[in-house]
Amino acid sequence: MIDHIQALSLRQVKVTDSFWSARQQLITDVTVPYMEKILRDEVDGAEKSHAIHNFKMAAGDIQGEFYGMVFQDSDVYKWLEAVAYSLAVKPDQALETRADEMIDLIARAQQPDGYLNTYFIIQEPENRWKNLLECHELYCAGHLFEAAAAYYEETGKGKLLSVAERFASHIIDRFGVDGEVGVPGHQEVEIGLMRLYHTTGKQAYCDMAKRFLDVRGQDPDYFIVHTPPHPGRLYSGYDINPDDTNYNQSFAPVRDQKEARGHAVRCAYMLTAMADVAGVTDDHELKAACERLWSNITEKQMYLTGAIGSTGHRESFTVDFDLPNDMAYGETCASVAMAFFAQRMLNIQPKGQYADVLELELYNGMLAGMQLDGQRYFYVNPLEVDPAVSGVIPGHEHVLCERPKWHACACCPPNLARLITSLGKYLWSESEDTIYSHLFVGSEAQTAHAGITLSSEYPWQGKALYTLHPHVDTAFSLAVHIPSYVPKFVAKINGECIDGALRDGYLFISREWQDGDQVEITFDLKPRRIYANPQVRADAGRVALARGPIVYCFEGVDNGQPLSALRLPRTAQIEEVPYDAQFLGGAVSLTAQGLREQWAEALYSSVPSIEEEQKLQAIPYYAWSNRGENQMCVWIRE
Amino acid sequence: MIDHIQALSLRQVKVTDSFWSARQQLITDVTVPYMEKILRDEVDGAEKSHAIHNFKMAAGDIQGEFYGMVFQDSDVYKWLEAVAYSLAVKPDQALETRADEMIDLIARAQQPDGYLNTYFIIQEPENRWKNLLECHELYCAGHLFEAAAAYYEETGKGKLLSVAERFASHIIDRFGVDGEVGVPGHQEVEIGLMRLYHTTGKQAYCDMAKRFLDVRGQDPDYFIVHTPPHPGRLYSGYDINPDDTNYNQSFAPVRDQKEARGHAVRCAYMLTAMADVAGVTDDHELKAACERLWSNITEKQMYLTGAIGSTGHRESFTVDFDLPNDMAYGETCASVAMAFFAQRMLNIQPKGQYADVLELELYNGMLAGMQLDGQRYFYVNPLEVDPAVSGVIPGHEHVLCERPKWHACACCPPNLARLITSLGKYLWSESEDTIYSHLFVGSEAQTAHAGITLSSEYPWQGKALYTLHPHVDTAFSLAVHIPSYVPKFVAKINGECIDGALRDGYLFISREWQDGDQVEITFDLKPRRIYANPQVRADAGRVALARGPIVYCFEGVDNGQPLSALRLPRTAQIEEVPYDAQFLGGAVSLTAQGLREQWAEALYSSVPSIEEEQKLQAIPYYAWSNRGENQMCVWIRE
Repeated sequence: MIDHIQALSLRQVKVTDSFWSARQQLITDVTVPYMEKILRDEVDGAEKSHAIHNFKMAAGDIQGEFYGMVFQDSDVYKWLEAVAYSLAVKPDQALETRADEMIDLIARAQQPDGYLNTYFIIQEPENRWKNLLECHELYCAGHLFEAAAAYYEETGKGKLLSVAERFASHIIDRFGVDGEVGVPGHQEVEIGLMRLYHTTGKQAYCDMAKRFLDVRGQDPDYFIVHTPPHPGRLYSGYDINPDDTNYNQSFAPVRDQKEARGHAVRCAYMLTAMADVAGVTDDHELKAACERLWSNITEKQMYLTGAIGSTGHRESFTVDFDLPNDMAYGETCASVAMAFFAQRMLNIQPKGQYADVLELELYNGMLAGMQLDGQRYFYVNPLEVDPAVSGVIPGHEHVLCERPKWHACACCPPNLARLITSLGKYLWSESEDTIYSHLFVGSEAQTAHAGITLSSEYPWQGKALYTLHPHVDTAFSLAVHIPSYVPKFVAKINGECIDGALRDGYLFISREWQDGDQVEITFDLKPRRIYANPQVRADAGRVALARGPIVYCFEGVDNGQPLSALRLPRTAQIEEVPYDAQFLGGAVSLTAQGLREQWAEALYSSVPSIEEEQKLQAIPYYAWSNRGENQMCVWIRE
Repeated sequence: MIDHIQALSLRQVKVTDSFWSARQQLITDVTVPYMEKILRDEVDGAEKSHAIHNFKMAAGDIQGEFYGMVFQDSDVYKWLEAVAYSLAVKPDQALETRADEMIDLIARAQQPDGYLNTYFIIQEPENRWKNLLECHELYCAGHLFEAAAAYYEETGKGKLLSVAERFASHIIDRFGVDGEVGVPGHQEVEIGLMRLYHTTGKQAYCDMAKRFLDVRGQDPDYFIVHTPPHPGRLYSGYDINPDDTNYNQSFAPVRDQKEARGHAVRCAYMLTAMADVAGVTDDHELKAACERLWSNITEKQMYLTGAIGSTGHRESFTVDFDLPNDMAYGETCASVAMAFFAQRMLNIQPKGQYADVLELELYNGMLAGMQLDGQRYFYVNPLEVDPAVSGVIPGHEHVLCERPKWHACACCPPNLARLITSLGKYLWSESEDTIYSHLFVGSEAQTAHAGITLSSEYPWQGKALYTLHPHVDTAFSLAVHIPSYVPKFVAKINGECIDGALRDGYLFISREWQDGDQVEITFDLKPRRIYANPQVRADAGRVALARGPIVYCFEGVDNGQPLSALRLPRTAQIEEVPYDAQFLGGAVSLTAQGLREQWAEALYSSVPSIEEEQKLQAIPYYAWSNRGENQMCVWIRE
């Protein structure tokens, strides 16, 4: 049996964290209302969404033409999912009422046979399910399923869930074991079906998810054969080549894949569902595939910030160790997806490596997507920018130096919104005899074994205090994830030092707990230098800085330009600037005595430059580009 | 008056150089015959050329459809130009007869009104001159003019020249001052017209060249207004956007341009003609524009090897200091064009910087285009390759690790062939009172002032011996270009040390010369380290090696992979491996005690790598990729 553990639901966890609670509030107070206005086309000057109008047309309330991406419906579903979590974090009756009304609208748009997709209802009813490569019907369904499960779980209201289940039945009738083979062009429905499975317990949803995973890549010509010609129409906004079997991971059966290839979000969504199915169905072969692809991504294709996707060309992985900093794609959605994948892996095997990557994504790759004020979002998260080149010259068009306004393709902001508001689900798990704490995020959790409070000054201080209120009088374990960057820590129970066993990155403390027992973990959060495997050409000879879970970067505004003239010698001491609540929303920054090359005008010279001392300052990577357009780099010459 | 000096013609110079004579022989014995076979479609497995067939159809000899690029004719013209120089280097009666026959064919293809372009004669006679942006009629004309001038000068035969002059008259009638405004979509006719002017002395050709230069960029909408719609047909093999005024340098009048932008070959061809016209017409404004753009290119946009064009996207310049090594375009033709431009600049002002760049291109950027056996050619000349990435992943498709077979667009090999066979033209110039020696290439020259012999072991040894046989008994100067990388040299006349005056990079020795007088220049050719302006992000923290005119590089076959794990500390002594005639066609290689990072498996680590000593070996850049596919870099970490 796969050692399956259960993540706590959002209702069991209340986030009370100085770092994350403020960010959850940004989402509930800024992002979710803004997203709603966008969906309703109420933001002056913003790109038209039309998403609600599409549903109104599909419901027959109004007449007109569909507008937007073929997957525009998913914006509404993702917003509803974020609303569900948002209501759990901060109840808001008016918002809930409006969400209920939107759900009513969605229910009315659903067709008698359960089908639901506004594009095909309005524009091409005769072409339903005819082009799975490009038309995103299953993708939208997946987001509906996730929203429905979330809304049911957080509000107790089942209307959207019933819409989702009717659509799921429709899909199972068509694509289940007795139906045709359907390979989703953009993985997501598999995640959604597993959410439905976990919420309802109905095996059929898990079976359908598993089948969608297993049919992929069985026939490499599937999309060539099954994609009808459609001259002049680009369903996805661009031409998806059915021959490109990497793009949607159809180059091989998922169980046989050895390297993560193609579109990074598609891949990580697929892996998220694979890990979930593997755990639920005790499928060791599938689990092994997840582990293999996890290793490939995290050991050969992941940026230091957790970003994945090395090329803007089709937002894709490229090849092992190809990690150009200035041309990275590193989509915010892909970091969100890696957090999903990490959480699912944790649930089938609580290992520190999964919690480490989860943490990395949360504090870096994902979080950099959001401006500190919550008003703008990056889709692309490079590790180096130069305003003269980034966003300007060929090959760099996708790399922006400042977060743009709302996109026509609004995938990333709602993805970030739903992850941050549902953060509570990522913190704790529970098995028959163990409570797992994956992250040092201040929170109060109700588990089967105990009520437990974690107070922490993370990520700025290495101190976590757990207070337990056991519900059982038998012994059980508290397993605390110790991040891999913590070389040495002190663990105390009620003030007494203990030697706990560190297994797979978790400190296991087993005992018969008494009410009010306290476990304190303390460790130094010293700044550390990080080096990359020399096979990563872009990082050779360079060093990056981190402190705790936070990866740092250098910006021109602090250090002058060009940043490429700077060097941080190995001998330089990295100093901490004490936490400053006024700086970048509250942060610890780092300084060091560095060197700047002085250079005359020539392009090339046999005379080496003279280096002059210069104080360097590094800020948290997630906070970059909050002070205007300027150069930035994570990796600096050593 | 612009201080115009006269380059010697090929008939005045015989190259007798150990380095270049062998390469000229490769061209005469391998490349020129191979090109002829390609033109005649006699190479099994090679891409169809059809160029001769096109002329036969245009002449009415056979029936059929045009095949090939719209500028396919230029392949024949460039071959004929190379044949002309080849016959000067190595007479070959059979070859000359076949060339004469080809000229007969071309003459028969010419239309009664002088027009000559096989595509439009065969396929679209009604569309002549209707699409200057894409159709390359003037481009092909320019190559015809160059070939005609060369063939006349080197063989004394005027048939092709008369074809050219008839076509030139046709062009002047249409586009001259009394005709319409025509802006060539790909600059080249301006060079060709100036060649006709220099050969015939007819002012009309110079006037037409000047007009073609001056009309460019006057109306930024010119190509938008004058490019007819042509659905479905891509004249140039790809869609040239008339809005892209950078691409063909029509963004501003040529005299107002401050930065080199757009397609690198188009730009450098344009500048070549501009310099020529400036000298001939004593046009200081035009000369100033040349100097300004020369500075911009060589001080901000040129790779260390002389390569220009930082992006494969439209083979273009990008922005100042953007010089990615692994994504360079650096077209061989662009290096050839820079040699042209340098030579024209030398002729209007004999300054060392022009001779330095000419030399740089000849020994590096241009020469790397050719395999050592003369059988394969690079179009793209990167300064770093990694076979896992180069030619494989998006954005790197254009960068190949090995020279490819003959291309459908065969622009580069004949360009290289005509430059190498006509090398004699680049070595010497003469003014009223001075003989200029621009390069240390062993040769015998007949100038107005003297017969002069230069013997040299360049580029491997720093020794040049001039022997003069004056034709005049008045004093005149010998001005010897001392490359800028020579810090100290000794000059002797008949064994006696002299202190010559070094002006603008030339050592001027003035005297009444006696028959047999010898001037000997000696200097150390020590390996040297080169550093780049820190604004060049790709080269920051790196060093490159050069010795004399030769830029060096590191290959995996000599140094192991990954090259990114290697470092060449500043303290390491660079040693010369004495000239080895058996190594890479005869070369001095360099070695140094370097360091290799030892690294375990992890992608990232806080533990810096251990460095182990490793002997590094560098080879001449021009000789890279002659021993199979492997990594290569010019810039190595210091």
